[in-house]
Amino acid sequence: MTMNAAAFITDDFLLETEYARDLYDNFVRNLPVIDFHCHLPSELVASDHRFKNMTEIWLKGDHYKWRLMRTNGVAEAFCTGDASDREKFEKWAETVPYLLRNPAYHWTHLELRKPFGITDRLLEPETAEEIWEECNSMLASPDFSARGILKQMNVALICTTDDPVDDLESHSLVQEDGTMEMQMLPTWRPDKALTVDQPDLFNAWIARLEEASGISCDTYEAFLEALRKRAIFFKLRGCKIADHGLEIPYSCAYNPETVSRAFSDARKGLIPDPDHVMQYRSSLMYELCVLNHQMDWAQQLHLGPLRNTNTRMFNHLGPDAGYDSVGDHAMAKELARFLDRLDAQSLLTRTIIYTINPALNMMVATMAGNFQEGPVPGKIQFGSGWWFNDQLDGMYDQMETLSQTGLLSRFVGMVTDSRSFLSFPRHDYFRRLLCNMLGNDMAKGLIPKKPDRVGRMLVDICHQNAIRYFGFDLPGVM
Amino acid sequence: MTMNAAAFITDDFLLETEYARDLYDNFVRNLPVIDFHCHLPSELVASDHRFKNMTEIWLKGDHYKWRLMRTNGVAEAFCTGDASDREKFEKWAETVPYLLRNPAYHWTHLELRKPFGITDRLLEPETAEEIWEECNSMLASPDFSARGILKQMNVALICTTDDPVDDLESHSLVQEDGTMEMQMLPTWRPDKALTVDQPDLFNAWIARLEEASGISCDTYEAFLEALRKRAIFFKLRGCKIADHGLEIPYSCAYNPETVSRAFSDARKGLIPDPDHVMQYRSSLMYELCVLNHQMDWAQQLHLGPLRNTNTRMFNHLGPDAGYDSVGDHAMAKELARFLDRLDAQSLLTRTIIYTINPALNMMVATMAGNFQEGPVPGKIQFGSGWWFNDQLDGMYDQMETLSQTGLLSRFVGMVTDSRSFLSFPRHDYFRRLLCNMLGNDMAKGLIPKKPDRVGRMLVDICHQNAIRYFGFDLPGVM
Amino acid sequence: MTMNAAAFITDDFLLETEYARDLYDNFVRNLPVIDFHCHLPSELVASDHRFKNMTEIWLKGDHYKWRLMRTNGVAEAFCTGDASDREKFEKWAETVPYLLRNPAYHWTHLELRKPFGITDRLLEPETAEEIWEECNSMLASPDFSARGILKQMNVALICTTDDPVDDLESHSLVQEDGTMEMQMLPTWRPDKALTVDQPDLFNAWIARLEEASGISCDTYEAFLEALRKRAIFFKLRGCKIADHGLEIPYSCAYNPETVSRAFSDARKGLIPDPDHVMQYRSSLMYELCVLNHQMDWAQQLHLGPLRNTNTRMFNHLGPDAGYDSVGDHAMAKELARFLDRLDAQSLLTRTIIYTINPALNMMVATMAGNFQEGPVPGKIQFGSGWWFNDQLDGMYDQMETLSQTGLLSRFVGMVTDSRSFLSFPRHDYFRRLLCNMLGNDMAKGLIPKKPDRVGRMLVDICHQNAIRYFGFDLPGVM
Repeated sequence: MTMNAAAFITDDFLLETEYARDLYDNFVRNLPVIDFHCHLPSELVASDHRFKNMTEIWLKGDHYKWRLMRTNGVAEAFCTGDASDREKFEKWAETVPYLLRNPAYHWTHLELRKPFGITDRLLEPETAEEIWEECNSMLASPDFSARGILKQMNVALICTTDDPVDDLESHSLVQEDGTMEMQMLPTWRPDKALTVDQPDLFNAWIARLEEASGISCDTYEAFLEALRKRAIFFKLRGCKIADHGLEIPYSCAYNPETVSRAFSDARKGLIPDPDHVMQYRSSLMYELCVLNHQMDWAQQLHLGPLRNTNTRMFNHLGPDAGYDSVGDHAMAKELARFLDRLDAQSLLTRTIIYTINPALNMMVATMAGNFQEGPVPGKIQFGSGWWFNDQLDGMYDQMETLSQTGLLSRFVGMVTDSRSFLSFPRHDYFRRLLCNMLGNDMAKGLIPKKPDRVGRMLVDICHQNAIRYFGFDLPGVM
Repeated sequence: MTMNAAAFITDDFLLETEYARDLYDNFVRNLPVIDFHCHLPSELVASDHRFKNMTEIWLKGDHYKWRLMRTNGVAEAFCTGDASDREKFEKWAETVPYLLRNPAYHWTHLELRKPFGITDRLLEPETAEEIWEECNSMLASPDFSARGILKQMNVALICTTDDPVDDLESHSLVQEDGTMEMQMLPTWRPDKALTVDQPDLFNAWIARLEEASGISCDTYEAFLEALRKRAIFFKLRGCKIADHGLEIPYSCAYNPETVSRAFSDARKGLIPDPDHVMQYRSSLMYELCVLNHQMDWAQQLHLGPLRNTNTRMFNHLGPDAGYDSVGDHAMAKELARFLDRLDAQSLLTRTIIYTINPALNMMVATMAGNFQEGPVPGKIQFGSGWWFNDQLDGMYDQMETLSQTGLLSRFVGMVTDSRSFLSFPRHDYFRRLLCNMLGNDMAKGLIPKKPDRVGRMLVDICHQNAIRYFGFDLPGVM
Repeated sequence: MTMNAAAFITDDFLLETEYARDLYDNFVRNLPVIDFHCHLPSELVASDHRFKNMTEIWLKGDHYKWRLMRTNGVAEAFCTGDASDREKFEKWAETVPYLLRNPAYHWTHLELRKPFGITDRLLEPETAEEIWEECNSMLASPDFSARGILKQMNVALICTTDDPVDDLESHSLVQEDGTMEMQMLPTWRPDKALTVDQPDLFNAWIARLEEASGISCDTYEAFLEALRKRAIFFKLRGCKIADHGLEIPYSCAYNPETVSRAFSDARKGLIPDPDHVMQYRSSLMYELCVLNHQMDWAQQLHLGPLRNTNTRMFNHLGPDAGYDSVGDHAMAKELARFLDRLDAQSLLTRTIIYTINPALNMMVATMAGNFQEGPVPGKIQFGSGWWFNDQLDGMYDQMETLSQTGLLSRFVGMVTDSRSFLSFPRHDYFRRLLCNMLGNDMAKGLIPKKPDRVGRMLVDICHQNAIRYFGFDLPGVM
């Protein structure tokens, strides 16, 4: 049977030319993984968590999969509801055969292949039970603990995503422990500081900030001071990167009194005027970015999603439940102003801009070019295909646009952006795609047929550039 | 002469791999056509119309072809003017050689190939006379009546597009007649109800609505009641689908008095304030969508065209004359609100969203994902490449975006959206493209090399999904 | 050594099929170049300038290259600063190996190949010195004067870009001289007339306009009259084309008093109200386009860039220094109104619309279709991939969208849009891409395998269409 499932994801998966296969084998197959942006729960790393079954590790909290199951007609009970773990897994297995051409079809089988070693079957109702049993029994072994999986996946470093109020206890534990072979660093993500339009949420969070910082946040200035103190704390715990999730790049003109007024309104439980909210956010983002510069952090801007669009389900499940999608705002002028305001005062730190809307790829890629300057190569980065763009087309388009308008050679590469310990094969997916892209270029004569030069570029993108750009304490490989 | 025109559109047209050819031959070549959205005049089906010549059946009313002729420098007299049918055909034949790479070049020769059986020549000035004569003589035979053509094209079902004031007499005739082997169903398209900004048009139409419904439309409530009565009438005549053509998804906040005021202003012949028009439309679209839900219809939203941009020609020819184009509005927030408003009350029926602007493909595809829910698979559909996107790239991009962000397996497939009895080869065009896409995926190892599974997916997309989704009374094929 | 650099850019570069290679060889390889839109300094042509070294001819004023160098971490001193020419060249040579996949990597080696004949090496630090020496010595020979290079590049005609206040002395000299084998024509580019929001700039420019026209510009009407007089002067000097660089297509409603007020405010040194600026620009663009129609010129609209985004560097270097990027405004309605306002009065001349934002390609391509009319084939053109889109993907996408929505056969083709005498290989790049596109279509059976017909289309696009469309006094080739 030459066309069995075993032939589906082979060693040559995505590698269409001899050039691509050689590049992959000789340069990137075994490179350690640097995942500088993920959402892994640091406490599960600290406790070296053991997963009780495939549903816990694979479906729980995975709103990508929920969306696909819902689209396949699966009832909510089997996505987020009270069906049993076994039933949920079965519904997922029923959905998988309908995923042909969706990236989740690849991810599913890449993840079964590694770390679970299942290469002879596709996941489908007929194989669901045996895969459930086999994988669950593997999950019970030490190689499949949180750290075990990271080790199997050849992970050298991860950056988690953390709230300024977080005590980073898990990070301290791991750092002091010293037995973990990889590094885990925190990332500064102060998005809740923007939520003056939701005073309850905002004030509850400020209470935690006051506690963490020891500073009473009665004024906007005191609030900024509290954030500054926490940023220093983060830096001491090894933080090297900030991250900001923004529907638009807040950068309108603002005046200090209005900003203070928005802050104090929210502190009193009042929702500020929408225009005041915008001024507040524009001011705060400026201050936060100045802080990033002071800390010598690289900053990530994740731009454009439309969140919580489904009110009924938001009321039922809260955020991050699979009801976010791609926004289509124009934002070139706002983004220019955002970056220019900082650059004008020489306060613009290294910046990675991600867009959720691929129609903005050219805008973002060329905007990055407006603020490049030595001595940092690729100071302003057009970030990898994000969220809905984290698939073959999306990654290809991002790299193609970057290539045509800037220096792919200086790209800091891929991230999982994932909550799951099983998502690391996406780095391999990315590497294969990149090798294939460059292999095709060689085959077509679009770049010189010089494997060493192209290979060096590959290693840079998949590994070295990130080390240099973020200043990670990791050995280089070439 | 191995490179003659006979070799242009071959049996393997668009099918680049052995996989693609096998899929096409084994699964979709002979599938009956379900065309759930077209603009065929139902009266021509009812009367089994005979076309007097190629200009009547091919060029009359075809604003796609007019645009191309104008672009080729052809004078208006030969497009919409008083040149003879023969002269118009000749001007079209002069234009065709300049169409290389335009989809109309394919359509032209696909349509000559089927139903006319002309495969040995290209249309060009040198062949115009003989093709004119041959086709005209075929049109005189019973096989080329309106129904004859539909039968030749293996059409199982069409849904026409109908105004709520239409008496659906043609549909009744065909249904009562019982001699036609295919089904023809009406579609509910109440766009004129939105035109309060054109009181003359609006009131003339309401007069017809009052007559058809027997309800005097003095108030907005009575107007809604009249629409409801007509919807029930449509349902009784077999209607299963509603259709709405919208420049944007009207969904602003509205208050009842303002809406009533806009209605009564228009009834008095006054143009309402622009903001009132928006409130009126937002209210009406909500009510119409609730009605669609009550009727258990699927609803189609055709979003984004800019219509009647050429004032001089609009004054000369009226609408639908080839002067519409692709709008570039942002509309993610409006669309989210439009759908959420219905979903929040569990009143969102199955919905197909078409965008005229391919730059919004990702927005629309991911927005659909926000409102999916069981038990209907693919409840919210990202509709097939529409209007200017109904060509190889456009169809490919729509399916690619759908694939990457949702379930292509659950796609309800292609429509002609056409006014012409000769447009059905577009289903074949679509099927070939889809087979080629999946065949390439198999060849590249992107999906399993399992023809039966892939074939089932093909049959679903080209046939079965539509039957299930719309509830058509047609036998399945697998 | 089969994989040496010599094999990088070969005779078959970009030509993937036998069809493509035959088309290129038989139809376009030796076609003279018509470059109807460039920014070559006419005075360098008039004086038959000799370049002192590679930095002068290759890097000076080339903000594309500066952007790439900055992205590579090169300090500003080596881009625009006071480093020596030799040092600047070295920094460029250091950057080139990092350009893989950027179009500048191709252009660099295409330009070294022709006119310099360097085909056996890649530019990199190791080869920098020898290439510097070799090329500099070539630049000292007559074949590498401004005119010598144009002759080597087989250039038949160029249109420079000129300000209405320019005396066109260089053009007169060249035309009277009669020894130059190619034609050089001026282009009317009155962008400065829009700058009422910068009164200092505006008034300084008007002073020159008054001098050139002999008309005192005290009123808006007198100002228009002065422009008209200059346009007639341009026409007498052979001008056949106007060009307008616009962030958006200014087309709001305006009233004459407001327009006059904006003009007189600016004349007094006051910045007019923003709304008045828009009305002024809308009025002026209407008047300028009417003038283009009166002159029987074709007009070019270059839409959408965001300019001078980096304030710090703008203050340091001024405009055109590499700090412009892709805007993302919606502009379909504005563009429709812009064209319709002219068309409604039968005053719309032949028009070429370029967009900097490829996300608007479909909008622009279909908008063009709204204003086509005989007898001019392709009266409204969707212009070639512009600025950041002037690369393989961008050119491909523009032609693909044009093909799918209009008549590629009627396309007037490529321009360098360049300030450099070395940019002409881009015409060859374009031709190869186009041959490859059509060759692939033939190989895939998407167009008939009729080389003569396809070849005629190629010659039209690369040569004949421009001659007919602009009315150049050049012999045809077929």
